[in-house]
Formats: sequence, structure tokens, C-alpha cells
Amino acid sequence: MSNHYSLMIHGGAGALQHIQAEGSEEDFAQSMYGILEQGRLKLQQGAPALDVVEHCVSLLEDDPLYNAGRGSVLNEYGEVEMDAAIMDGQDLAAGSVAGIKNIKNPISLARLVLKKSEHVMLIGHGAMEFAELWGVECLPDDYFIIESRIKQFQEAEKAGKMMLDHEDIEQEPQRKFGTVGATAFDLEGNLAAATSTGGIVNKRWGRVGDSPIIGAGVFADNDTCAVSATGYGEQFMRTVLAKMISDCIHFQSLAAPQAAQAGIEYLVAKVKGLGGVIVIDAKGRCGAGHSTSGMIYGWIEHGGESHFQLT
Amino acid sequence: MSNHYSLMIHGGAGALQHIQAEGSEEDFAQSMYGILEQGRLKLQQGAPALDVVEHCVSLLEDDPLYNAGRGSVLNEYGEVEMDAAIMDGQDLAAGSVAGIKNIKNPISLARLVLKKSEHVMLIGHGAMEFAELWGVECLPDDYFIIESRIKQFQEAEKAGKMMLDHEDIEQEPQRKFGTVGATAFDLEGNLAAATSTGGIVNKRWGRVGDSPIIGAGVFADNDTCAVSATGYGEQFMRTVLAKMISDCIHFQSLAAPQAAQAGIEYLVAKVKGLGGVIVIDAKGRCGAGHSTSGMIYGWIEHGGESHFQLT
Repeated sequence: MSNHYSLMIHGGAGALQHIQAEGSEEDFAQSMYGILEQGRLKLQQGAPALDVVEHCVSLLEDDPLYNAGRGSVLNEYGEVEMDAAIMDGQDLAAGSVAGIKNIKNPISLARLVLKKSEHVMLIGHGAMEFAELWGVECLPDDYFIIESRIKQFQEAEKAGKMMLDHEDIEQEPQRKFGTVGATAFDLEGNLAAATSTGGIVNKRWGRVGDSPIIGAGVFADNDTCAVSATGYGEQFMRTVLAKMISDCIHFQSLAAPQAAQAGIEYLVAKVKGLGGVIVIDAKGRCGAGHSTSGMIYGWIEHGGESHFQLT
Repeated sequence: MSNHYSLMIHGGAGALQHIQAEGSEEDFAQSMYGILEQGRLKLQQGAPALDVVEHCVSLLEDDPLYNAGRGSVLNEYGEVEMDAAIMDGQDLAAGSVAGIKNIKNPISLARLVLKKSEHVMLIGHGAMEFAELWGVECLPDDYFIIESRIKQFQEAEKAGKMMLDHEDIEQEPQRKFGTVGATAFDLEGNLAAATSTGGIVNKRWGRVGDSPIIGAGVFADNDTCAVSATGYGEQFMRTVLAKMISDCIHFQSLAAPQAAQAGIEYLVAKVKGLGGVIVIDAKGRCGAGHSTSGMIYGWIEHGGESHFQLT
């Protein structure tokens, strides 16, 4: 049992071979490796899965390579509006925030909602007031908005359309969805999941995607699995995909890889959905699936070596 | 097939025998009957399930007996903040709004999000801007805030706690959850579901409950069922209950009454949840379940007579 921990992180899905603007394959490899190893260190030391997914996602938020926290995409007004959620598989405790600004680590605010509020989900100004109440770190707009996102937003605006994280306007399927997330299985056998995002480029003011929705972009239950999703959020919301994957395990006793696959098949069959998921089941097995041509993710299964998929 | 339509509506769950402040049993009976018969008329005439659930929920919103639209409970600042969602079982199209004010019929705004936006969920000011864009009917605060809610809010404030729709401060379980909802099965065999609420008395600014969350307080899929929930929203979010009920049918082929029962058992087993659900399955069978001692709901099964439960 001493090295029986597992960890998965993801940094987006899409037609990745077309997208080099945000960083090279090597940039992503280096970032993913560093974050996985930091997570491993915590898990080895006996840290709870919930702490580890919060920590890994906050590192992904801090890294401008990803569409979450610093480096988030811009909405129709050229602003960063972020969503995040976290869930503890031990008692199904959950915390979620949506439509927030200037919070350095949205995932930590979601964790605070889980821990310190009577509620699961807080949005907009109310969520910001809650953040202020607890002295959560805020930073000016400059911190979040990076140059490549401004350029991307201007292109989307010019084309007069809402776009995903990266989307070639001529070719509908050439997209990248940069939402980040983590799932973990700790030494006590507890599962947790966390997801964070800046959403969709040029999205409508107040749009909320699947990331902060318990059961859509995130879910964790010690009896089944922990799931984090990335992709076209609306499709994950309509199929309630993270819960679907958990229910595949609940009703059919699938292992993580099969459950991830079944979930993606359901997503495609039901709504022709685009995106991917990472899943750790109650035995610490790791699985992933995506309907996009590529997905960026990394994993450590049962305390083994770090593995990556970067295309 | 000519009279093979079904319809269910609900107006809250709880320890109803203790709660007469909002209206007598007769008041509720009369209101429920009128709304069910209006829904029947539409279904008989061949209206789509989606239109019928929107219409029935808008009537429930207009009636100050219920905690939705006019008569909504007040948040920590004495304001009405409303949430609503609607879903079409035919293609899993969904629309949802949260944290909105002054919109006469939140459910119609949710329908507009379904129909006219690229998104599933809009919140707060962004949702209000979208409403303005489409000329949605707005009314002053006076319209929404009724006297009994002010009194209730003042009591909650005095006690320094967040309360549900109605809650005896001395006795924790003496609550009422007044969220409203409808599910329908039309002559074409399509299912739809809608849910609308004012939330929880003295709730924190920006709190979102299960009602606008696809898979928690509302779900519809022609292949399984249509579900609308009422209860302690956070517990329905953590268990993703509406989707769980749909998955009971997807994986176990349960009929609506058994699926509703299985869902409520899951809610209680997982989080000791309080509330109730209405369910119509893909064959038009009606089912309901609640873990509270009472629930207010009415139904028409396969074009038959109107039935009610008011305690």
C-alpha cells in the first residue's frame, strides 16, 4: 500500500498538431512533468487527494501555457472570466465558482467554497465578495491577460464569432480546448477531482461551461472514480458526462480505461461531442479518452513512472 | 396514441403540515389543478413537451404561492435572485440562467438561452444583458417581493442563519423547499423538463443551487426520462441526482416510479439528502419520490384524470 497512489493531470484537447502558438511540445512536456512530480511528492508524503488536485491545478493555472488562471482566454468584452470546481470523493463535498475575475487561483477559491460556505456554487460578484471575506489573493488584469490571447481574441472578434481556445476559422474541427484538471487517488484510498478554465474565446458575458458544473466537467466519488473533463463545455453539460462515467462504473463495474472510453462514446453518440476526460477509479487505475484527435495529459499509476501524451 | 400524453408539475417538498403561511391546502389544490389542465389543453392540441413545461413553470412562477418568480425568497441582502433551467429530451438541448433579477419569467429566459445563444448557461449581469438584447419582460422589485417573504427573511436574519424556503428555527427538519418544476411527454413521444426557483432564504449573494444545473435539478432525454427536482439544492448537486435517475433507466431499464424511488434512495444513502423528484419515462409513465415527509405535486398519466398529492 505504501506506493499505491495515482495521479492524472490534463491541459487541453484538440487538433494539437495545428497549434503551436501557445507553446511547443517540449514546453508542455516540461510543464506537465514538473507538475506531476510535485503532485507525486505530496502523495508520497501522505497528502490527501483533495490537497493534491488543488495544488496541481493551481500550478496549471499559474502557467500561461494553459487556458486557466494566468493565460485565460478573453470573453466578448476582452475580459478574463474564470470558472473552477473541486470535489472530494470521500463525502461528495464540492465547491465551485463561476464568472470570477482577478482571483489568482480560482481552484483555491472553489476549495474555500467547499470548506467555508454552506453552499456548493457561488458566482460572479457574490463569489468575489466571498473571496474578499476570506482574504483570497487577487491580482490586476495585467497578470491574467497574455499577449497571444489578445491576438487570438482580436481575430475572433474580427471574424465575428465565438471561438474555442484555439480554432482555425476556416476549418471547424481545428480547435484546442485548454481547460486544465487533475484527478488523484491517495494513500488512504480517497479520490478527488478538480477542473479550472478561462472558457471559450470571445464567449458571451456570463457564459458558464462545464468546468464548474459538478457532474459535467468534474466529479469524484470514492465508490466509483474521479473525473476531470476538457472540451466543448456545452456538450459535456448536456450529457452530464463526468457523472455518466461514474455511473458506468456504478452500474457496470468498469475499470477507469473502459469507463473513460464508454463516456467518450456516449458523448459522441448523443451530441457529437468534442473533448477528453481523465479518470482514476476506486482501485487507483488510470484511464483517459478523447474524441478530439489529440489531448495533453500525464499520469502516474500506482506510484509508477510519469507518463505523457502530448499530441 | 391520440391521448397518450403525460404531464407532471411540482411546487415544493418538506414538512408541509407545519407550513400554512404561504397558502392553505385548498389554495395549492386549486393552483395545481388549473395549471395541470392548462398543460393538458396544450398537449391535447399537439404542443411540444418543451412548450408545455415552459408554460406550466411560467404559471407556477406567476403564482406567489411558490418560491419562484413572483413570491421568491430573499437572499442575504433582502433581494430576489432567481435560477431556472429547461431541457429538451429530443436532442438534449438545454438552457439555464442563474443569479438573475427582475425577469418576470426566468424559465422563458432559460428557453431563450436554449434557442438563441450558442451557450447552455448564462449567469448574472451577462444573462441580464442577453435578456435585454431579446426584449425579455422585466418588472420592478415590488412585483417579486411579497410580504410573507419579507417577514420570513427578517426572522432568518435575526436568527443569523441561512434558511430554506420555510424552516422552523427550533426544529431543523421542519422545512419547505418551494422550487417549482414540470415534466411532460407529448403526442410525438418527446420528453422535456423545466425547473425554476428563488433558492434559499437568506442565501449568500451569488449562491446557485441545483435548479439551473443540468443533471442536478433538471434533466430530459427521450431515451430515458424527464426529471425535475426540489429540495436542498446542494445535496442534489453533489449527487447529480436528475442524471442519476436517468442513468437508473439507461442501465437498468427501470420504469419512472422505480427510478424515482431509486434516485431518492441514492440521495439519502449518499448525502442524507432532503427533497423530492417528479419523473416521466420514455413510455409516458409517471413517478415521484421524496425523502421529505411531504411533497406538493400533480400529474396526468397517459391522458387520464388529474391527480394530486398536497401533503
